[in-house]
Amino acid sequence: MTTEALCDEGDIVLVEDPTYFVYLGILQSRGLRARGVRLERDGLDLAHLESVLQSLKRSGELRRVKMIYLVSYFQNPTGVTTSFVKKVEALKLLKRFERAAGHPIYLLEDAAYRELRFDPAAAEKSALAVPGAADRVIYAGTFTKPFATGARVGYGVLPEPVFTAVKHIKGNHDFGTANLLQQLFVRALASGIYEQQVARLQKRYAHKARVMKLAIQKHFPPTVEWWEPEGGMYFWARLPRNVPTGVKSKVFSTALKSDVLYVPGEICYADDPARRKPNHEMRISFGNASEQDIREGIKRLGKVLRKIL
Amino acid sequence: MTTEALCDEGDIVLVEDPTYFVYLGILQSRGLRARGVRLERDGLDLAHLESVLQSLKRSGELRRVKMIYLVSYFQNPTGVTTSFVKKVEALKLLKRFERAAGHPIYLLEDAAYRELRFDPAAAEKSALAVPGAADRVIYAGTFTKPFATGARVGYGVLPEPVFTAVKHIKGNHDFGTANLLQQLFVRALASGIYEQQVARLQKRYAHKARVMKLAIQKHFPPTVEWWEPEGGMYFWARLPRNVPTGVKSKVFSTALKSDVLYVPGEICYADDPARRKPNHEMRISFGNASEQDIREGIKRLGKVLRKIL
Repeated sequence: MTTEALCDEGDIVLVEDPTYFVYLGILQSRGLRARGVRLERDGLDLAHLESVLQSLKRSGELRRVKMIYLVSYFQNPTGVTTSFVKKVEALKLLKRFERAAGHPIYLLEDAAYRELRFDPAAAEKSALAVPGAADRVIYAGTFTKPFATGARVGYGVLPEPVFTAVKHIKGNHDFGTANLLQQLFVRALASGIYEQQVARLQKRYAHKARVMKLAIQKHFPPTVEWWEPEGGMYFWARLPRNVPTGVKSKVFSTALKSDVLYVPGEICYADDPARRKPNHEMRISFGNASEQDIREGIKRLGKVLRKIL
Repeated sequence: MTTEALCDEGDIVLVEDPTYFVYLGILQSRGLRARGVRLERDGLDLAHLESVLQSLKRSGELRRVKMIYLVSYFQNPTGVTTSFVKKVEALKLLKRFERAAGHPIYLLEDAAYRELRFDPAAAEKSALAVPGAADRVIYAGTFTKPFATGARVGYGVLPEPVFTAVKHIKGNHDFGTANLLQQLFVRALASGIYEQQVARLQKRYAHKARVMKLAIQKHFPPTVEWWEPEGGMYFWARLPRNVPTGVKSKVFSTALKSDVLYVPGEICYADDPARRKPNHEMRISFGNASEQDIREGIKRLGKVLRKIL
């Protein structure tokens, strides 16, 4: 809804490279373009963000840039969390380029996985906490991911005039989220059940992540690099650059024959004229799988990888 | 979603005159224009539909007409049901103008209130049943209105290529309706609870409608015309033409002071250059009110009307 409110056809949205693939579908459906900003282990590559903005300024396209989309906690697909320091710097950078853009450049912080941190004490602050930046930050949260994935209720913190525009769009989409679900969350939050369930899920996912890590250590060949998450539901693995993992690749089809499904890294990258699309990575989810299935799945995937590598 | 799929900015959608006001908001938000087709007691005025199509053909605007939107059962706001015979004729008419339009003209049948008929035996057939027309009819149904208004699950029957386009739009809106709600309806439907509850609500609304009718007969002045519904949740009342009922009218503000809220007819009419917008009608809902409140509300509204008329 934020994207619909802020962007016109042909506009450009900055995204993490790679990013949440469903969001790329939204951009495509609205005739929007994406520009990728590289990710490091602690989030956005700020030097790259600056160079992307510079290059858009030079090409006269900065006026088409309305926002940057950030999955800032335990990102889907990489598991990466953007540090608060980087949020501060990113917002400074965006502000610097606003004059050349001719309008505000917003940061949309998708915090879907924020509560699903394995160490409850390790909470990175939101971009909303960056001093003086609240009028440029759109915070999108959800009660769903850390509580019950089938009950879809989310919330947002939006500055004006985005708030009013998004409210209208929401009304036109569905005239309001199902009241039954909202009532359910009101009761879960008021009674403390919500907090208990989040704590339970934090432990459960942390445990599943450990199970997956041990299985990966045991079964993956050493030429496969991988990132261990500190929250969320995903491992990110990187094969040697010349070994494709895409939907038409041998790795993908062989894995599928063994009843193992991963999200090919390829589909998490925007069509970006500035770089070739990487095609040698995979998102591996432990969200829904049982411990048993995680062990067995990673064992089978390891076998596929050893065979092909 | 259908409107988003079929229409580009500046396109024209034919609507009932008056129509469901929330839909008018959707048209406005997408930069679409509406043309009203008059309603008779048994639905669309076919002669007017033909003259509207003719006039659009003459003005060269027919190529902007992509669809007609019909709330065909116990319409919101008037309670009118479009007869099957009229659906047959309307689809024939639309077909006749397709060559001049240069593309299909779809009929979107919003059947939200279909199940809420007071006489369960009196079921008018859907436009889907019109022979040879299924490839032009988009049927929108809901499990919500006749069962539990806070649990929002609907369904559609759509011809290609509209179906595929709408599926993509749905994915981009919410990536799928909340699973919890879908599961709830699967169980209610399979167990028979759904049918029982619909039958119960049919009786309850039929009773409320009778209560409202008696109260209106007792309290409204004779110069107020009104339509009694055979289903749904709404009475439609028409004051003398020179007595406005809009949000800025004396009738509306006086009613509000007595804690009575109605939907002004005015907001149910599209901005249509072809006619002045009527401003002397009101939608009166008995959906959510108790019998007691219906009696008291109509009594107070009658007092306002008698005073002002």
